[in-house]
Amino acid sequence: MPIATTVLARLHAMVGSENVLVSKEDLIPYAFDGTAALHQMPGAVVFAHSREDVVSVLRFANAEGIPVVTRGSGTGLSGGSLPSPDCLVLCLVKMDRILEVDAANLTLTAEPGVTTIAIAEAAAKVGLFYPPDPGSMKISTIGGNVAENSGGLRGLKYGITRNYVMGLEVVLPDGEVLWTGNKCVKDVAGYSLRDLFIGSEGTLGVITRVLLRLLPKPAAKKTLVATFDQMDRAAQTVSDIIAAKIIPCTLEFLDRTTVRCVEDFAKVGLPVDCEAVLLMETDGHPAAVAEEATQMEALARRNGAMEVRVAKDEAEATRLAAARRSAFSALARVAPTTILEDATVPRSELARMIRFVDQVARKYELRIGTFGHMGDGNLHPTFLTDERNHAEMERVHLAFREIFDEAIRLGGTITGEHGIGVAKKEFLPGFAGEASMRVMRELRRVLDPKGILNPGKMFDVVPNPSA
Amino acid sequence: MPIATTVLARLHAMVGSENVLVSKEDLIPYAFDGTAALHQMPGAVVFAHSREDVVSVLRFANAEGIPVVTRGSGTGLSGGSLPSPDCLVLCLVKMDRILEVDAANLTLTAEPGVTTIAIAEAAAKVGLFYPPDPGSMKISTIGGNVAENSGGLRGLKYGITRNYVMGLEVVLPDGEVLWTGNKCVKDVAGYSLRDLFIGSEGTLGVITRVLLRLLPKPAAKKTLVATFDQMDRAAQTVSDIIAAKIIPCTLEFLDRTTVRCVEDFAKVGLPVDCEAVLLMETDGHPAAVAEEATQMEALARRNGAMEVRVAKDEAEATRLAAARRSAFSALARVAPTTILEDATVPRSELARMIRFVDQVARKYELRIGTFGHMGDGNLHPTFLTDERNHAEMERVHLAFREIFDEAIRLGGTITGEHGIGVAKKEFLPGFAGEASMRVMRELRRVLDPKGILNPGKMFDVVPNPSA
Repeated sequence: MPIATTVLARLHAMVGSENVLVSKEDLIPYAFDGTAALHQMPGAVVFAHSREDVVSVLRFANAEGIPVVTRGSGTGLSGGSLPSPDCLVLCLVKMDRILEVDAANLTLTAEPGVTTIAIAEAAAKVGLFYPPDPGSMKISTIGGNVAENSGGLRGLKYGITRNYVMGLEVVLPDGEVLWTGNKCVKDVAGYSLRDLFIGSEGTLGVITRVLLRLLPKPAAKKTLVATFDQMDRAAQTVSDIIAAKIIPCTLEFLDRTTVRCVEDFAKVGLPVDCEAVLLMETDGHPAAVAEEATQMEALARRNGAMEVRVAKDEAEATRLAAARRSAFSALARVAPTTILEDATVPRSELARMIRFVDQVARKYELRIGTFGHMGDGNLHPTFLTDERNHAEMERVHLAFREIFDEAIRLGGTITGEHGIGVAKKEFLPGFAGEASMRVMRELRRVLDPKGILNPGKMFDVVPNPSA
Repeated sequence: MPIATTVLARLHAMVGSENVLVSKEDLIPYAFDGTAALHQMPGAVVFAHSREDVVSVLRFANAEGIPVVTRGSGTGLSGGSLPSPDCLVLCLVKMDRILEVDAANLTLTAEPGVTTIAIAEAAAKVGLFYPPDPGSMKISTIGGNVAENSGGLRGLKYGITRNYVMGLEVVLPDGEVLWTGNKCVKDVAGYSLRDLFIGSEGTLGVITRVLLRLLPKPAAKKTLVATFDQMDRAAQTVSDIIAAKIIPCTLEFLDRTTVRCVEDFAKVGLPVDCEAVLLMETDGHPAAVAEEATQMEALARRNGAMEVRVAKDEAEATRLAAARRSAFSALARVAPTTILEDATVPRSELARMIRFVDQVARKYELRIGTFGHMGDGNLHPTFLTDERNHAEMERVHLAFREIFDEAIRLGGTITGEHGIGVAKKEFLPGFAGEASMRVMRELRRVLDPKGILNPGKMFDVVPNPSA
């Protein structure tokens, strides 16, 4: 349904007609995000250039009861930016200024539309380090990272986005502006509203400013690649590394299917006749790095690694890391529809979980390539399928259900870093349990009584009639 | 007012008469916590031995509308465990079992009454490390640490309690049991209820189980003490250390008054003719530690340190650290009433804040000893006063107000690690702002509609009449 002319006139008055898209051709790129097989046309796209724009749009939408879906670059993998029918897509990519780099306090302040890579580069320019590195960091925005609490390759040692957010400016659904947090390393005054907004997937407010914590840049880094003829040997190597009290910054793995696709795509010289490739990176003081790299190589060899290659220089290290980063794109080339999952288990259960995913793939006659973050138990079984094949999609769905059930049974979670969005909505109640679901629903009703923000995402909630 | 016999009978039936205290002599030790000048007799003290005990007590109290104040060892410094009139004190110190140490996943699971030191020791026994080290760690309980989001001496490098809590079992005010979190390094399924409970000072639920994250134990440590004739020189040394990309695990300072009290008390040989003592600790890989210690020593000397002493061995390091840990006790010996504050500012503003505290002390003719965590901007101006001297207490109060206002003006917080409790309740609205206060009030009403849990703590909230 085309947007009402009265609504359009109001939007034009608020943000200027050049910041409102309504034609079908213009809307199509905003009808989906990075999640396969999900499309929905919005009513309009509105670009905010300032906090004041966000306030006006939300105040108006809340008064009129118009649903608002927030969006950065739309790289999400759970449908978090998928429009709801006739909604306003509130796009924040034009709020893209880095406002401050404070080296004395090791902080950086940015608007939500700044890309993750721009944050990392601004920190690096003054010798500092922003560790979270989600796979899509070249285009993903920091606002989206915070809303989704994005992970990345360095989770085990450095944690995830939540661990680097010190403060947030948030516009609540009714247009009120709230600031939570500050540059203090310690602050225990009141509930941590900041932590409530982080990872709430845009359902509680719109982030308009982010205060991030930075670290000194590690002085040295070493990258190793080990190949194994059995996945269990790679998993055992990871367990042995942790048991040796080493916390590497990266411990990534690729299975046979993924290695072949990556090699076809990126040609970095990975051996395609192995069952598992383990990418290991250690960073920190040069002496610690040298020692840890030697120990990790020895542990890989003791577990029967076919080959262990130590990157000679930064260029080779970057090439190897890029190969891992290309895993999703490489897999996506070989099938019309690629569905990337992120079931996550405690690290000790990872080998078991990988075997289970293989069994499920065989049972449902599906092609799966699996890669992911072995150090933190976060694996990405990727279904290579075709959304036009309804029978196969039905089997994909059944396979997912079994994988999530097993992840929960092993003490894991249904999503390690991609979020619930719409893709995993049906699995959340079984994971979270009735008490948590009740509390989450009530919290959301308190913050968004009319239910205008990203309705239908994460879980359904009945709007408060008295709001 | 003595507790009603019907209520007492119900409590006896629930937890056994041996776990209920009602006589005046028995109640007196539970009428206060570590906060000066706050006393209030409860109606009864109830000891819980299990989650089921907590469920029964809360279900009963919620149905009857009886206020419940939770308590561990009562070491809090903001009145968080102060009874409200005729309340039930629900004491959790008997739930004191460590349930699991999982070395493969680097986690530890404990009941809330386990002391912080017992957690640290259980971790150390398997070569692991629990970093948060609040000043009272020898007697404080982990449940209290989580409820207050306790800090400690290692905040700058290792973070605070929040950064080590992976999961919580919480009994809601109506007796419902909720589990939030798991052993996964990454988990983004749903709102982070865990983070909402951490630091909520017992106002949203009662913690009955804690899942903690551990780290490998650092291989080496070095301790240095530098003395300065001007506080600014100590502060500049800290800034220079950070600018040199060093993040020490400890950067503590003591001012002249505190040094003298500590020396009187502990006799570790600190020079009493200085204006500031800086205690520095670096830990990690031996090569990194050696280098950082050398650099820190050089930076202290470049800033005109009167003396820099490097601890020869573990015994001397422990003695120096213990001297710092004794600061509060040492100050407490010299005055009938010692009020320990924890205004906190961004690290870059610390020298300015210390000067301001001195000015305020002179203006109101008060004795203040200041010490604290220079690395993370968390300072502890400690008022040496006498609560029987009403005129002086009035001046103390005015001095606090000025100090908090200045902390906020400098981008800081009114409490870095002690919490709001009742001691700082009046300062929270000015710090948090109207929007945050409204959201906090509404969240609390959602979780505790009848307002039975720690009523009057943090902020007041009108109970929900329809609950």
